[in-house]
Amino acid sequence: MDEQQHELDGQPEHGGQPDDATTGPAAAIVPGFRFAATACGMRFVGRDDLALAVSDEPATWAGVFTTSSAPGAPVVRGRELLRKGKPVRAVLVNAGIANAGTGKAGLKDCERSAALLAKQLGCKPREVLCSSTGRIGPRIDVKKIDAALPELLAALAPDASGRLARAIMTSDSVPKHAVQHCTVDGREVTLLGVSKGSGMVAPRMATTLSFLFTDVAARREALQDALVAAVGTSLNQLVIDGDTSTSDTCLLLASGAAGNKPLRRRGRDFAAFRAALGALTADLARQLARDGEAATRLFIVNVTGARTPEQAQAAARSIAGSNLMKAAIGGGRLDWGRVIACIGASGAAYVHEKLTLRFGGAELVRKGRHRGDKAARAALAHLAGPTVDLHVELGLGRGQAEAFGCDLTEGYVRENSAPLPEIVK
Amino acid sequence: MDEQQHELDGQPEHGGQPDDATTGPAAAIVPGFRFAATACGMRFVGRDDLALAVSDEPATWAGVFTTSSAPGAPVVRGRELLRKGKPVRAVLVNAGIANAGTGKAGLKDCERSAALLAKQLGCKPREVLCSSTGRIGPRIDVKKIDAALPELLAALAPDASGRLARAIMTSDSVPKHAVQHCTVDGREVTLLGVSKGSGMVAPRMATTLSFLFTDVAARREALQDALVAAVGTSLNQLVIDGDTSTSDTCLLLASGAAGNKPLRRRGRDFAAFRAALGALTADLARQLARDGEAATRLFIVNVTGARTPEQAQAAARSIAGSNLMKAAIGGGRLDWGRVIACIGASGAAYVHEKLTLRFGGAELVRKGRHRGDKAARAALAHLAGPTVDLHVELGLGRGQAEAFGCDLTEGYVRENSAPLPEIVK
Repeated sequence: MDEQQHELDGQPEHGGQPDDATTGPAAAIVPGFRFAATACGMRFVGRDDLALAVSDEPATWAGVFTTSSAPGAPVVRGRELLRKGKPVRAVLVNAGIANAGTGKAGLKDCERSAALLAKQLGCKPREVLCSSTGRIGPRIDVKKIDAALPELLAALAPDASGRLARAIMTSDSVPKHAVQHCTVDGREVTLLGVSKGSGMVAPRMATTLSFLFTDVAARREALQDALVAAVGTSLNQLVIDGDTSTSDTCLLLASGAAGNKPLRRRGRDFAAFRAALGALTADLARQLARDGEAATRLFIVNVTGARTPEQAQAAARSIAGSNLMKAAIGGGRLDWGRVIACIGASGAAYVHEKLTLRFGGAELVRKGRHRGDKAARAALAHLAGPTVDLHVELGLGRGQAEAFGCDLTEGYVRENSAPLPEIVK
Repeated sequence: MDEQQHELDGQPEHGGQPDDATTGPAAAIVPGFRFAATACGMRFVGRDDLALAVSDEPATWAGVFTTSSAPGAPVVRGRELLRKGKPVRAVLVNAGIANAGTGKAGLKDCERSAALLAKQLGCKPREVLCSSTGRIGPRIDVKKIDAALPELLAALAPDASGRLARAIMTSDSVPKHAVQHCTVDGREVTLLGVSKGSGMVAPRMATTLSFLFTDVAARREALQDALVAAVGTSLNQLVIDGDTSTSDTCLLLASGAAGNKPLRRRGRDFAAFRAALGALTADLARQLARDGEAATRLFIVNVTGARTPEQAQAAARSIAGSNLMKAAIGGGRLDWGRVIACIGASGAAYVHEKLTLRFGGAELVRKGRHRGDKAARAALAHLAGPTVDLHVELGLGRGQAEAFGCDLTEGYVRENSAPLPEIVK
């Protein structure tokens, strides 16, 4: 098997672990949680592919899942558990096989994995959330998960979230890991997040796998509200290739170990927590965009002056997601006409004479008029850098939004067109 | 200027005319219409870039335009004229500059061009429809159009629609030209169509520029209904790169020269005309898909058994438009998991145990089960050919639809990322 050519959630991935030197995630601790990873050998060779997060006490949780009408088994089960809303003890994640396109057999495999872990933890199966990422079509190997559980449980440690971040990688070249703090009820609480995903990434509810942990004590509704808001302006504004996965999941678990008065859906504490959660997921979204498959440039689009916030979001996503814009960003091509096409495609209200465009600090178009050669040269210089910041001022209202993307390269096409080394059943 | 690197509607194009030998459009005649093209030199060198179709008598017409909220000036004017619904005498098209992103100044340029031609033809300006394709941002040069009009009018000939087809090309490598016949009121009528477009093509109302001509006599409402229906199952189901242009336009002009009793929106004659028009636009859609920018394979997706026709359309478009599917098609990669991801992304109802997939004649998956190595080898052999036919049977209802696409290649990225040779203002 050629590990370079595996397909995960439909895309190929690097089978090897990244160098620790290139990752450097802070080994942050979130009181109440322990983490672990191991190699169960379901498909990868020589790297962790099974990860676990355990909450010492039942944790309140929130979740956002893909809107796909063909979701993977763990998403089907996760949606159902979210509806019931009971606290959970653990999240079990495997990388390599997505357990999607597997029908009822896949759901049974998922239930069985949860039951096996629950037995070891001394909790109920419904207290174990599952998540899978990888090839669509094949079934997961429950026996391999079962055999790996003792090692996984023995490895649990409070400072091992970096191992979790690495074990869930598929075509990612670096792990994604972020930490935020805020004050709730006079106590400092920690928010820690890990994400994976670099292909089959488009804005649909969640996008990619993200697991967020916090020691805050919170009511379930407050957690869900905060998560939906945070995902809406971060992971939902992330576009790598416009493809939507069967497995997108974002989970937020709260241990309550901070001992604060449980967070409700209002007041200054809730605002502080929401802001910290928003910053956490925006940080992860930027890390995901920068590591887009075969990407060489991070592309951040900021739209202001839209008639409504929704129009700003749509316009920003349309620009960040356009193949033509993304190819231009990759080649350092100054292509402002494509920006107008993307605004139009989004349906956002547009009056040419009100449009102002800035590439980095270079104002190329002001109120519909091109500002000349000097401005164009400054914009071209910005386009040559590692991060492209495009600011679109529509001049029609107060709607504002950001979107996160990356360039489209020949490497992306090469990676995703290479024939598979084996027949996938 | 490097003619290979021009940007038209945001994409680069080939500046030269294709060899006549590679085009071979039938020089079909539609009674009542004459066609012409010439080189006005607005941006291209050594090729026709200004085209004209004239109806000897005022022609009833129908139109479908881009849904872009930032449409080009000819689209803004065309929508307004369509609302008024008066007959027209001519269609004037220039290639090279889209007259989009030009605001009010662009609208005036468009009005002025129409007025200049109207004066020569002895008709009213509102009897001249305009269409432009090319770079977004710059203004058209009305003086160059004015100077070219005498030559254009002198060149008018009934058998010159092939010149029209070639003059409107941008990044197209071959002209698109199709003819159909049907019987209405006992008389044979002709339908002739030309299209252009190979990048910035996604399903939104029209897609690309298409000009259709027929000698049928018809009521305006019958023409519009037939056109909307035909576009819905053909040009609206065409995806090349998912980008939507500012200029998409499909016009249908009916001269009435066939002398039939004017077509109404019912009966056997209307059904015959609708069928012929649907066949004409489907033919053009296939020609457009096959000539997608840097494409090497035509990709036809046929979805059956969807719960509704709308779900079938959405699923077919989602599959044909996915970057990951398109890259796989380019590499001859057998990637059926990606098909499931695309169905899910479309929101179409999906039950894994009901899914059947066929690549050409090879049934790879039947009712959710992979049919083994022999089936996979047969599917791989089909994927190696110039046309990929994917049949998706969802097994849930009677909804059926087709979508037309092409592969995503490294060449597409190369063409669309190359820096522009000059600063575009």
